[in-house]
Amino acid sequence: MKTWAAVFLIISIVIGIAMIPQLNKYGKENSMITTENEFMYDKSIHILTMLLLGFGFLMTFVKKYGYTSITATYLVVALSIPLYMLIRPYLWGSVSEISITNISMLIYAEFAAASLLIAIGGPLGRIDTSQYLLIGALFTPLYAINEWVLFSGNVIPSGTFLDTAGSVMIHAFGAYFSFGMIPMLTLKRERPIVVGTSETSNKFAMLGSAALWIFWPSFCSAMVAINKVPIVAINTVLALCGATLSTYVFSIFIRGRIEIGDIANASLSGGVAIGATVANVTPGWAILIGLIAGAITVIGYTIIQPRLQKATGGIDTCGVHNLHGMPGVFGGLVALGLVASPWWQLTGTILSVIFATIMGIVVGFIVSLLGIKETPYDDKEEFGDI
Amino acid sequence: MKTWAAVFLIISIVIGIAMIPQLNKYGKENSMITTENEFMYDKSIHILTMLLLGFGFLMTFVKKYGYTSITATYLVVALSIPLYMLIRPYLWGSVSEISITNISMLIYAEFAAASLLIAIGGPLGRIDTSQYLLIGALFTPLYAINEWVLFSGNVIPSGTFLDTAGSVMIHAFGAYFSFGMIPMLTLKRERPIVVGTSETSNKFAMLGSAALWIFWPSFCSAMVAINKVPIVAINTVLALCGATLSTYVFSIFIRGRIEIGDIANASLSGGVAIGATVANVTPGWAILIGLIAGAITVIGYTIIQPRLQKATGGIDTCGVHNLHGMPGVFGGLVALGLVASPWWQLTGTILSVIFATIMGIVVGFIVSLLGIKETPYDDKEEFGDI
Amino acid sequence: MKTWAAVFLIISIVIGIAMIPQLNKYGKENSMITTENEFMYDKSIHILTMLLLGFGFLMTFVKKYGYTSITATYLVVALSIPLYMLIRPYLWGSVSEISITNISMLIYAEFAAASLLIAIGGPLGRIDTSQYLLIGALFTPLYAINEWVLFSGNVIPSGTFLDTAGSVMIHAFGAYFSFGMIPMLTLKRERPIVVGTSETSNKFAMLGSAALWIFWPSFCSAMVAINKVPIVAINTVLALCGATLSTYVFSIFIRGRIEIGDIANASLSGGVAIGATVANVTPGWAILIGLIAGAITVIGYTIIQPRLQKATGGIDTCGVHNLHGMPGVFGGLVALGLVASPWWQLTGTILSVIFATIMGIVVGFIVSLLGIKETPYDDKEEFGDI
Repeated sequence: MKTWAAVFLIISIVIGIAMIPQLNKYGKENSMITTENEFMYDKSIHILTMLLLGFGFLMTFVKKYGYTSITATYLVVALSIPLYMLIRPYLWGSVSEISITNISMLIYAEFAAASLLIAIGGPLGRIDTSQYLLIGALFTPLYAINEWVLFSGNVIPSGTFLDTAGSVMIHAFGAYFSFGMIPMLTLKRERPIVVGTSETSNKFAMLGSAALWIFWPSFCSAMVAINKVPIVAINTVLALCGATLSTYVFSIFIRGRIEIGDIANASLSGGVAIGATVANVTPGWAILIGLIAGAITVIGYTIIQPRLQKATGGIDTCGVHNLHGMPGVFGGLVALGLVASPWWQLTGTILSVIFATIMGIVVGFIVSLLGIKETPYDDKEEFGDI
Repeated sequence: MKTWAAVFLIISIVIGIAMIPQLNKYGKENSMITTENEFMYDKSIHILTMLLLGFGFLMTFVKKYGYTSITATYLVVALSIPLYMLIRPYLWGSVSEISITNISMLIYAEFAAASLLIAIGGPLGRIDTSQYLLIGALFTPLYAINEWVLFSGNVIPSGTFLDTAGSVMIHAFGAYFSFGMIPMLTLKRERPIVVGTSETSNKFAMLGSAALWIFWPSFCSAMVAINKVPIVAINTVLALCGATLSTYVFSIFIRGRIEIGDIANASLSGGVAIGATVANVTPGWAILIGLIAGAITVIGYTIIQPRLQKATGGIDTCGVHNLHGMPGVFGGLVALGLVASPWWQLTGTILSVIFATIMGIVVGFIVSLLGIKETPYDDKEEFGDI
Repeated sequence: MKTWAAVFLIISIVIGIAMIPQLNKYGKENSMITTENEFMYDKSIHILTMLLLGFGFLMTFVKKYGYTSITATYLVVALSIPLYMLIRPYLWGSVSEISITNISMLIYAEFAAASLLIAIGGPLGRIDTSQYLLIGALFTPLYAINEWVLFSGNVIPSGTFLDTAGSVMIHAFGAYFSFGMIPMLTLKRERPIVVGTSETSNKFAMLGSAALWIFWPSFCSAMVAINKVPIVAINTVLALCGATLSTYVFSIFIRGRIEIGDIANASLSGGVAIGATVANVTPGWAILIGLIAGAITVIGYTIIQPRLQKATGGIDTCGVHNLHGMPGVFGGLVALGLVASPWWQLTGTILSVIFATIMGIVVGFIVSLLGIKETPYDDKEEFGDI
């Protein structure tokens, strides 16, 4: 435990020192339109709320694992934000107009952290804190590469891939990375063990869910032009409304009762699915996309996940494939009808899913070298008696 | 259960499809002042926080009913926002400059959802999720009509009714609607049953209360001119400070101890009461209005509610009459001293209260046809064993 | 209990009435740049979130004292904000350009409330609600005097003391005020009694911690020029990232396990320490300052606090000296390398610490006259059976 702590202390110090030479990018600061920066500033705080309060508490639904869930959230956010900021300028070079002193840089780093939090939702409870940090250290550059492939114009031509709020780049990438990792990190004998929840842990999860619901419009509108913000915000809210209603309906249809886990998760799938086309569809369509996404996610939790788990041997603790994987791909495919070149839209979507899955397998394998546990973790193991 | 789920699925799909033709209103988008839209955008998110985190968690104080409270909140918000957006353009016609792509439209829809959440606070725990949704479907158009009566200029002359942040239009309307519904939805034998709370459920309620307190200035300043925002924000904060202090004092005066339910609820009454005049009074008066509102609400919970319950036969689970009803009317009446025509101010206030009460009785009766339960609901009934 | 309630009711009414004559300052409203006011408005709401949701819930970690922690937070915020707004114009006179109708006034009042909440974190659980209010009534003018000494230009020359986001003025002042108070309010026999926490109370505390982490960039950037906001926001986030990582590492190094209380508190120390220099350092340095601050705070909790407690005889319930005291002074001293006149920087820092400590002793003595309890308080004592 102490060895790994020392390793991550050194990594943190190195990141800090390595960012000092980036000062020469400092000069760009004054060239920014400050008003726009201010509007983006508020959105960057909203996204931070989604990361720490949203994802962090949504993942506390596991009864005996709340401390670790929140701590892991803090840690991977604290690692991936500076790491992304360090890497991005090297990857993009002169293509990027974003320096370390732009709010855009912070928002892109937060997107990376969001995708990472999605990725750790799969193996949640099967790994320890040093393994979360290791995933964070390996995931962040891979995410940055995929983002560069999709949007730098060097691989996929600029403007051909539509993914305004990251249905594919953020959600599907994180989910399929997770999908690749979990078979590497789960033992067969674990599969029948059901993750325990409690009334209180589920209420904390609903709190996280509410934080994600509320600030999702800022996630979607963070990087759009100011005059697009109203329609993007309204479409996001309506997609979430649609998903919330269909979650309730399909939860009852399939289970015969309401499941609080469905409400907490599937209600958000409208936000995932609308991401790609949020600035291009009209409000009526946003509701319908949300309604479909909610149905997909509930079907995922109830019907697809048990089969997939049996087929791949990986346990997806948070069901990220249901909430971020399928709705993310669905969102990317909806854009097929709106883009000039469906070919590049399809290429970008498939490429991201394949790259994420393969890298997930590789990273999952590396992380498994630090140890695989026979039974799910418990807070006591790293926090002592509580 | 499945039948009603199917009904609401169809309603959701119809709303989605019905909103597609509203595209022709899309053109107005570019005529907006985008900077103003951005400022309003942040407030729309703040109000969303009040809806889902604020009202949602404030209503979880009932120990065995937390899942249903939060789920009902999600559902009525998800239904009423699109429904309001669909209805409003038909009601206002050419009077309204607000199209589906304005942030103002989102904020007005959130106001409708807020009033609806107040309305369901009364019968909370006496009805099931399909009944909450039915209330939402019936309440939203009625609310929109009352709003149109007060502010479109077709009934009450434009500019004569002062209610900047909805003391009357939002708070009193929701509360008296609730007041009308509850006798229809409560059985006599239920009356002695005390709603159980727990330490944890009360802490979640305090979380909701804090979310409402914090974002109340955005609720009050959402629709005011930008140069009025500072004074409105300061007046709102000061009114809340006043109400918080007098809640503490009157809780001790009347009960001889502090009651956490008073702190959670009555502290907010300053925000309710200042709503009508928030842009017109000075900071010193805002504190005094808050002090009086806090006293009114605590007296409501301790002295008035038990008598009213006996008289009307309706159980007001959240005490919305104490928090939103009386302080809302008080707020509307404070404005009498500030408006050019006290006559119209009085008319608007009384009309809203009477219309809300009568419509509440009608809707309560309709909803009761879906069934009345002999004892308060429990999460288990719709969520299964938890 | 009722007598003190009556006293604070009268104080509240007097504050309200006393603020009515401040109307003559109303005229300044129109001279403000409204756009800037709007940006500051959002930050004022973010800071309000830190006060009620952040500090309020961070202090609920004591298992049997959650109701009182939150209620005390509500009360001292509700008292200190109007009180500060009343006092400031008299202190600053014509030097200040800030009238009662500026958002700046609200933000400065929130800073005062933040410092007060830090101050009550020390004696938390050893005093009753009337004593919290009395501390609030006495602390607020003393804080305002210290602020005036540091920044009005009448004592320390304008522009010579660097403390952009109050490492010294807010954090160290509140912490050393607390440091002075606690020996007056703690009995010897109490010292061995360990404050009990629970899994749920710690999760609520993590919620408070997350709220503080998330909105800290707004705390730091609230009063800086708009073109400085991006770098200030990024530096704050990076300092918090650094502190979070080193908290994890040093928690493991020193304790051999993770401690949730360290994660909740020490992760925030980066925000405390970066406060003074947040607009003047570069991102790489912000990470390093955060890393050091996290280490200082964990060493504070594990090694320094037990010794200090034995030496001074005061029990610091929340460990405010570890989180706000030492990192605050550290932050003030970091600025020594950046200011024109290290002499005034040192004077301001030392003066604040000494003034805070002495005033803390005096106020602690006065508050102790209302009674000292032999054992820590419990919610039952003021809230009845719960």
